[in-house]
Amino acid sequence: MARARWGCCPWLVLLCACAWGHPVPANLGGQDVRNCSTSPPYLPVTAVNTTAQLAALRQQIQAQNLTAYIVPDTDAHMSEYIGKHDERRAWITGFIGSAGIAVVTLSKAALWTDSRYWTQAERQMDCNWELHKEVGTTPIVTWLLTEIPAGGRVGFDPFLFSVASWESYDLALQGSDRQLVSITDNLVDLVWGAERPPVPSEPIYALQEEFIGSTWQEKVSDIRNQMQKHSKAPTAVFLSALDETAWLFNLRSSDIPYNPFFYSYALLTDSAIRLFANKTRFSSDTLNYLNFSCTGALCVQIEDYSQVRNSIQTYASGDVRIWIGTSYTSYGIFEVIPKEKLVTDTYSPVMVTKAVKNSKEQALLKASHVRDAVAVIRYLVWLEKNVPKGTVDEFSGAELVNKFRGEELSSGPSFETISASGLNAALAHYSPTKEVHRKLSSDEMYLLDSGGQYRDGTTDITRTVHWGTPSAFQKEAYTRVLIGNIDLSRLIFPASTSGRVMEAFARKALWDVGLNYGHGTGHGIGNFLCVHEWPVGFQSNNIAMTKGMFTSIEPGYYHDGEFGIRLEDIVLVVEAKTKYPGTYLTFEVVSLVPYDRNLIDVSLLSPVHLQYLNQYYKTIREKVGPELQRRQLLEEFAWLQQHTEPLAARAPHAASLAAVLAASTLAILSWSV
Amino acid sequence: MARARWGCCPWLVLLCACAWGHPVPANLGGQDVRNCSTSPPYLPVTAVNTTAQLAALRQQIQAQNLTAYIVPDTDAHMSEYIGKHDERRAWITGFIGSAGIAVVTLSKAALWTDSRYWTQAERQMDCNWELHKEVGTTPIVTWLLTEIPAGGRVGFDPFLFSVASWESYDLALQGSDRQLVSITDNLVDLVWGAERPPVPSEPIYALQEEFIGSTWQEKVSDIRNQMQKHSKAPTAVFLSALDETAWLFNLRSSDIPYNPFFYSYALLTDSAIRLFANKTRFSSDTLNYLNFSCTGALCVQIEDYSQVRNSIQTYASGDVRIWIGTSYTSYGIFEVIPKEKLVTDTYSPVMVTKAVKNSKEQALLKASHVRDAVAVIRYLVWLEKNVPKGTVDEFSGAELVNKFRGEELSSGPSFETISASGLNAALAHYSPTKEVHRKLSSDEMYLLDSGGQYRDGTTDITRTVHWGTPSAFQKEAYTRVLIGNIDLSRLIFPASTSGRVMEAFARKALWDVGLNYGHGTGHGIGNFLCVHEWPVGFQSNNIAMTKGMFTSIEPGYYHDGEFGIRLEDIVLVVEAKTKYPGTYLTFEVVSLVPYDRNLIDVSLLSPVHLQYLNQYYKTIREKVGPELQRRQLLEEFAWLQQHTEPLAARAPHAASLAAVLAASTLAILSWSV
Repeated sequence: MARARWGCCPWLVLLCACAWGHPVPANLGGQDVRNCSTSPPYLPVTAVNTTAQLAALRQQIQAQNLTAYIVPDTDAHMSEYIGKHDERRAWITGFIGSAGIAVVTLSKAALWTDSRYWTQAERQMDCNWELHKEVGTTPIVTWLLTEIPAGGRVGFDPFLFSVASWESYDLALQGSDRQLVSITDNLVDLVWGAERPPVPSEPIYALQEEFIGSTWQEKVSDIRNQMQKHSKAPTAVFLSALDETAWLFNLRSSDIPYNPFFYSYALLTDSAIRLFANKTRFSSDTLNYLNFSCTGALCVQIEDYSQVRNSIQTYASGDVRIWIGTSYTSYGIFEVIPKEKLVTDTYSPVMVTKAVKNSKEQALLKASHVRDAVAVIRYLVWLEKNVPKGTVDEFSGAELVNKFRGEELSSGPSFETISASGLNAALAHYSPTKEVHRKLSSDEMYLLDSGGQYRDGTTDITRTVHWGTPSAFQKEAYTRVLIGNIDLSRLIFPASTSGRVMEAFARKALWDVGLNYGHGTGHGIGNFLCVHEWPVGFQSNNIAMTKGMFTSIEPGYYHDGEFGIRLEDIVLVVEAKTKYPGTYLTFEVVSLVPYDRNLIDVSLLSPVHLQYLNQYYKTIREKVGPELQRRQLLEEFAWLQQHTEPLAARAPHAASLAAVLAASTLAILSWSV
Repeated sequence: MARARWGCCPWLVLLCACAWGHPVPANLGGQDVRNCSTSPPYLPVTAVNTTAQLAALRQQIQAQNLTAYIVPDTDAHMSEYIGKHDERRAWITGFIGSAGIAVVTLSKAALWTDSRYWTQAERQMDCNWELHKEVGTTPIVTWLLTEIPAGGRVGFDPFLFSVASWESYDLALQGSDRQLVSITDNLVDLVWGAERPPVPSEPIYALQEEFIGSTWQEKVSDIRNQMQKHSKAPTAVFLSALDETAWLFNLRSSDIPYNPFFYSYALLTDSAIRLFANKTRFSSDTLNYLNFSCTGALCVQIEDYSQVRNSIQTYASGDVRIWIGTSYTSYGIFEVIPKEKLVTDTYSPVMVTKAVKNSKEQALLKASHVRDAVAVIRYLVWLEKNVPKGTVDEFSGAELVNKFRGEELSSGPSFETISASGLNAALAHYSPTKEVHRKLSSDEMYLLDSGGQYRDGTTDITRTVHWGTPSAFQKEAYTRVLIGNIDLSRLIFPASTSGRVMEAFARKALWDVGLNYGHGTGHGIGNFLCVHEWPVGFQSNNIAMTKGMFTSIEPGYYHDGEFGIRLEDIVLVVEAKTKYPGTYLTFEVVSLVPYDRNLIDVSLLSPVHLQYLNQYYKTIREKVGPELQRRQLLEEFAWLQQHTEPLAARAPHAASLAAVLAASTLAILSWSV
């Protein structure tokens, strides 16, 4: 899945919106969006009246002697997906899109969001709200500087700001005579009251031994070893991200949609372990599993989630040094630790350690991808038979692939399925709803980006198909996306190369003819954890590639108003054997679903591409074939054989060859004359 | 020229030294380096006795109530090359290498430098000095924390620290109870006394109109326009880097070896221009050229260089906002400007504007490259005749190519010529001396990395040649370096792509077989300015590529103790014409010297590479041929025809093909089994 909001990396959205002409969502007609310039203003039925909640919030703002209040879109753990009770921005604005920051002053209210959500915001917000079609700190601060007078106090909930986002606001306001004011009682929560959805209370459970790579004691010891070896000798590691505690203790629950996490923090000191969570959610078995009743270095003390700030503040008053990852730690924790007692890295040692899977974790993740391939293949076979009947739509299709996934070891989808037909696929993050969806057709391309949460692993795969006669341009674009996927997947690179310096190999075949895509090229993935597992990937804020990491590779191409293509595979970083000795790496593809032969223009592929594809198809047959047979999916087995027949080289069409030569010649001539 | 010290980017040296096994300089035998573990210590004749200067410096350290003092290797303008009177680190340590930081406490003295210089430091330093084989702030601060007690005061000259380096020391010392103390009187200068070389006093002159792209008045107006459009409304731009003032005013001198600069700063306000320099160095004509006698917005007031800090402090006391580039501004200036009056970017608007050459500047730089090609070709022709006689050595060769360059419009070489035969070329930054050099031979490869300063442009080109029978491995490595050069040179990429994300195209052909190189892939270059002109290039701290920028492309391969290869061309960023519409860019190569046919394994080249090379050779003939004829260099003209004959495709040798297939198969098999 192409990640819309890359963790701490919102610039990508900007890139998407501005630099490469991200498709603008279709405007469904004037009557569906508000018009605040008429008198009285026109509001569609989808708009939410926010007058009462805004008035209540402004009372709180005045009570705190503030002039403005910022309402971000994240939770206290900098989660990508958030729970219902954390949807403060949605409640106060009416706009329920996943990305967008609101600011309320005593006289105005404004929302900043990116192009994916402009139409949605115009449908859902009433005329209390200004819509700003920008993202990032700068436009918000620029607006604040014009809206609030010198001496103004800008309130914020420190738990909803990462250290980095707080620093960016602080820097932007420096010298402006406006002050950032940290207020730990969230003002939206104060006015939300009883309407606010409750905090989840499902049981927190330990993973069965067969699904873990190491015991929590082994993981704790490993992190403590890293503390001891660290030049700044930290006495503790503090963990904020929800997948950090889930991974460290091999615990799971279901607090966040699509993510098997539970609200928690952890403080791992050299002699104790404190887990901040709701204690009533642990069974006595789970408490025993955590050695709850003892007090030694490998005994987990459970403290109440709400006590974390006080507890860290108390710990920080001693002769200690606390190691944190600034990307996922909120300013609410950061501000109670004296600077000289902080040992900071961008990512905590747990985040970095978790990124490299050991051999058992690798085997678990690979096993989940074999089952996942079966589900996707079943769906593709079913589509091939049913789409021509005209009875399939994007939403029912999404439901079906989720159903196929929901068998062995499943815990549901790993994100909201992107099932997009025709022009809808040009919106990189479109998802159908029961109410709004498009029928699948043999005359259109169809893009499916979906994944599952299994006890052994998290999956994420995208395939794009066409059941009729694609245009030459569609085939060219698809094949160039495929070449990009292959060129990056088969790249051999020195150990510790950063993904950022290699991701252009996934774009080159598109760049050659003036095409591109406006999203990142890949992201890490976990073992029954995040589908977007930071800090692995191809962005500038990802860490260097190391043997044992998993990442997606997902180039695409989006043609506004017509079609969209994305081909996404999960790959494992493995050692490469090179002609001359050296520590070199490459990728092993673990997603095992064939590409659509109907969309491949073989004449654009080099012999190396063909050899690679045919080897990949052989691997699919070897790994997925027996699983299809075991489950007696014989029709699917036959389909697999057919769709993994080796592709034969084909001489380029005279026209294509001429085009290739003309393109090179053009590029060269442009400077030789 | 592969840049050793990438401006504000010392991590590259680290990368070079650690990650990719940068070749270690040959140890010329125990008697040539010090041995401080014997009693008495053994010192070679090359070692400098620093006892007296250290004692004098320690007196100053005590007088200032300090416990340590840092002596960096730069000047007040963060120059890459520095003048003799700025070689403080060399004077206090005895070690004259270009990179290395010294720290002196009351009882110890230590130097930190990278692997290129370890042997040289052991030869030149006496046993007063510890040698630390590391670079960066962290090892220095770690050492300081063990050597000086709590409460310690670490002195430094704020003019020799960039804002970024000051921040890194400040951050590393935070919470340690050791304090950084800024002392504007340099303590080394105080004890250096009359021995210190004088500050240059050569005339500062205006460039003739034919050699400038715009008048200084036009450049000033352009920068003022940028100030007006800036959201933070700066009232002034402050310029620190020496090439900024040289470029802005179209002035030159010769204060720094290889760099036509003069010591200066400039403050460009909305209504006035102040140039801080030594006024006696301007002729009355030059003063008139600068409108020295008037006081309007386009009149240059000259203030004494030594007054810059006071003058900026006074200006900053008003209602002003001063725009600076933090990369080249010293902490000595930064610390006198109140934070709220600073508008900071990594690079000043002059640095960024200068990076994009207008059409006249492009034509000037191209013209200088035609003359430069003539000089290099004359040298290659001469070598071809004389190397077999056994009469040529690296140093006499370097002198000859400099002589060939020193004709029309020349101001000497643009850096110290790298003329390296055989194993010496494996040291990426080796330069021969009159005393120490190697004879050129038909049995060895020879690498020449050299460039000229011409009134119209600065050049920098590397060619590697072999006059005998290179080994198959040498030919393979050379051809892979060439493929890397071609693959990056012909890359088509979207406008505003960062060089960092595309430089791996220059490495891929090497990576494929487990080879690589340990330096950056290219750097900007100026019009009779810096040979390493920041901020253009392929590093992470370079700005995005824009039409009109010039950069080098210079992949290489270095085989320890045997040979070295580098192929460097200067290229211009130009628009690419693509099959589908879009704003795409590519490179036009402006260096015009053929590669060595004797080292090219044609069987490794694809038809696209061959087509590209033959087109390039055609361009060389068209541009350099007439110039050779004009200068009646008929032998060279014949040589050029011979060396630019189109290359014909050759079927891969059975062995090579097998190797290619085996390499791909190995890489694929490594994950399919």
